[in-house]
Amino acid sequence: MSRRQMARPGGRSARVQASVHTAVRELEAEVGRDALTVPLVAQRAGVTPSTIYRRWGDLRELLSDVAVERLRPDAAPQDRGSLSADLMAWAEQFVDEMASPPGRAYIRDALLGDPDGSNAGQCSDYAAEQIDVLLARAAARGENAPDVETVIDRVVAPVMYRVLFRPAGLDAAYARRLVAEVLGAVGR
Amino acid sequence: MSRRQMARPGGRSARVQASVHTAVRELEAEVGRDALTVPLVAQRAGVTPSTIYRRWGDLRELLSDVAVERLRPDAAPQDRGSLSADLMAWAEQFVDEMASPPGRAYIRDALLGDPDGSNAGQCSDYAAEQIDVLLARAAARGENAPDVETVIDRVVAPVMYRVLFRPAGLDAAYARRLVAEVLGAVGR
Repeated sequence: MSRRQMARPGGRSARVQASVHTAVRELEAEVGRDALTVPLVAQRAGVTPSTIYRRWGDLRELLSDVAVERLRPDAAPQDRGSLSADLMAWAEQFVDEMASPPGRAYIRDALLGDPDGSNAGQCSDYAAEQIDVLLARAAARGENAPDVETVIDRVVAPVMYRVLFRPAGLDAAYARRLVAEVLGAVGR
Repeated sequence: MSRRQMARPGGRSARVQASVHTAVRELEAEVGRDALTVPLVAQRAGVTPSTIYRRWGDLRELLSDVAVERLRPDAAPQDRGSLSADLMAWAEQFVDEMASPPGRAYIRDALLGDPDGSNAGQCSDYAAEQIDVLLARAAARGENAPDVETVIDRVVAPVMYRVLFRPAGLDAAYARRLVAEVLGAVGR
């Protein structure tokens, strides 16, 4: 996903992006993922196939962009009054989403059609932004808190590693244990 | 990579696998990765294209198997006299290999052509086996040691997460810090 695509959010470029993304989501639901083709998506979106090829390169890169869009958090995480409660709830939801069959499929799609790594970086930035919100709240409350890269290493990375490479035992209890350990390390 | 493929290491099946893997490695070096096709690999390996399609499904799954084979460690990690020295050296080499351009390409290949996750699981098992060797040595020396899943969460996962999603700062110092932290947690 190049910066250029985002340059004019109200322009033709943004309208094309929105209609193509919508076409992918609708067709995935209707005909299934394996039946998707660039001409089919183009027809549904009301653009020419060459518009899609010019902008996304191929179907895999388009699916990667759509996946990243779906992995974008809808809202800032809820304030539950303490860093521990906030981070536990966030991590449980993160495991729940990422380890679900659609979550796994989006992560795969995001990685696969992403030759320059910018979509994978965007996924990581989404997680970092949410964690930043929780850490800023903790700082405002005067709580001790780890830094964002430590939370990435100790909570986000093990979850994502297990989603991709070692899927057994990925549940809410695992998420809570990771959070308890990273917060325990700060408390000492 | 199905277990079946490994069933008769001396049989025709194993010979086909070896010649096809060799053909992929040679052709990658000669014509480059993007020029590889199933007919080209088949011709070099002296098998029919249908043999490859029957066994691997498509080029992507073949490349995934070749990548896993390349990610397999050559030997048990060296004994450096203490768990700390052993794990530091292992983690530095792991970062070095995985963050290198070929390492990144193999990890991507291993994930991409792996619809059932068995190749990704194999990569994770390779790391776990190497760590198991180090932890068994530590136990024999009477050293305190974390368990293998903790080392996976605290050292392997952050490295692999950063290789795939957040590549800045992946160096030997980072590897040493992860090891110092997981061993420090055990020491307390």
